[in-house]
Amino acid sequence: MSTDLARLSVNQMTVRQLSLPELADACHALGIGRVGLWREPVRAYGLTATARLVRDAGLTVTTLCRGGFLTALAPDARARALADNRRAIEEAAALGTDTLVLVSGGLPPGTRDLRAARERVADALDALAPCAEEHGVRLAVEPLHPMYAADRCVVSTLGQALDLAERFPARQVGVAVDTYHVWWDDQAPAQIARAGAAGRIHAFQLADWTTPLPAGVLDGRGQLGDGAIDLRAWKERVDAAGYTGPIEVELFNERLWARDGREVLAETAERFVRHVVG
Amino acid sequence: MSTDLARLSVNQMTVRQLSLPELADACHALGIGRVGLWREPVRAYGLTATARLVRDAGLTVTTLCRGGFLTALAPDARARALADNRRAIEEAAALGTDTLVLVSGGLPPGTRDLRAARERVADALDALAPCAEEHGVRLAVEPLHPMYAADRCVVSTLGQALDLAERFPARQVGVAVDTYHVWWDDQAPAQIARAGAAGRIHAFQLADWTTPLPAGVLDGRGQLGDGAIDLRAWKERVDAAGYTGPIEVELFNERLWARDGREVLAETAERFVRHVVG
Repeated sequence: MSTDLARLSVNQMTVRQLSLPELADACHALGIGRVGLWREPVRAYGLTATARLVRDAGLTVTTLCRGGFLTALAPDARARALADNRRAIEEAAALGTDTLVLVSGGLPPGTRDLRAARERVADALDALAPCAEEHGVRLAVEPLHPMYAADRCVVSTLGQALDLAERFPARQVGVAVDTYHVWWDDQAPAQIARAGAAGRIHAFQLADWTTPLPAGVLDGRGQLGDGAIDLRAWKERVDAAGYTGPIEVELFNERLWARDGREVLAETAERFVRHVVG
Repeated sequence: MSTDLARLSVNQMTVRQLSLPELADACHALGIGRVGLWREPVRAYGLTATARLVRDAGLTVTTLCRGGFLTALAPDARARALADNRRAIEEAAALGTDTLVLVSGGLPPGTRDLRAARERVADALDALAPCAEEHGVRLAVEPLHPMYAADRCVVSTLGQALDLAERFPARQVGVAVDTYHVWWDDQAPAQIARAGAAGRIHAFQLADWTTPLPAGVLDGRGQLGDGAIDLRAWKERVDAAGYTGPIEVELFNERLWARDGREVLAETAERFVRHVVG
């Protein structure tokens, strides 16, 4: 593996057109030793089969995406969410990763109280954090860009994510820093330092910001170097905060998904070297 | 005019399908005494003709939207932007409004330095603020939602807008608070208090947050009550900060534009009473 690619992890959603065996092959060919996985394609391939595949391929699983969606008001919906997150913790452990990324969830339909929804996330973390620790898994609360605050994630800033995480030991709960979600925030650099000092940067992900945004704003994450984010500066901030772990590229992009997956993976590795670490 | 509608101002973009005379007629019929205007339709109707129309109709012009776009790097582009903003100040004065709303502008193509772009906005305000005061016009720096940070407005939070405004006297530069842009921000309530204490809330605008967002994310501002924002709570925060001025409804919404403008105006007034002041 080239030194430049040593910290690169490719989230499988970046090249979701590749099956898990194709992804493993392509990573081997390019000298990429780490991947981030998603629950749905893992389940489709089979949890045990996936764990065996990545182990046999010598791949390290940096994160499992994702648990969360913890803002439900109704007791039965809340109980289902907690049960699903306990399964996600078990899946993470089975895959050999120490990090489960959590997306908090949005406002329940018809409600307008962000603060109360965030408090329900804290309550849910209280129920899940000990279970995670038992399985050797850390929870990484991921702030999502404020454009998702209503329907996907009421945690919009690193500051908010750390306010939640700091109620728990760092070995149980930390944060995920994703450039796509925090790049606009002039307070994010100070929050990265705060997170790093406490050993709470449990995941670091990259995507670039390109415009115009597509309808629904889910699948417009830009290839590294194509957008407005100074990726190298963010990598240096996270490094300066003491983080030495994997750097995961997680792109949701219809145009990348329409291309040959191996070609996209090679391009991503090249962009990673050119715009982030090289 | 009904007491409930006394503070309502309708931004003309909310019902852009109405001509200026139609807007004046419809406002009269509904008991709406205030409007916010945009430069382009004013120019199309004629500045002098618009000023006469609103005066004859007894309408108060609460804001002119908008100046700004002050982030250019090239000296000639910067000079053009300043000249255009001086014209906008003169237009505001001619229309009899004391408030010109400023949208800062995005990152110049190929650049990635938000902080430097914000500093160029400050430099431009330095050139424009005295000119505004001479004309009896206050500049209202409007933070736009972080989803516009790259291509439209590098000022994403009320905190950032106030950091800019506080370099100048409040009679020259303040902020515009728009619920659509700040509703997600847990620090916005404290920043509203900060702005109000200094007499810097120069405009207060309402729109609701509805999802999914449309492509380009410009024309998806929801009718009052249709979305995720607790509008009444924001109105009460702004009131508590000492603001007693107009409350302007500014919706950009393709579905509203496709309907009969008078019907949309009546609905907007009804929603204003139901969800904001009633």
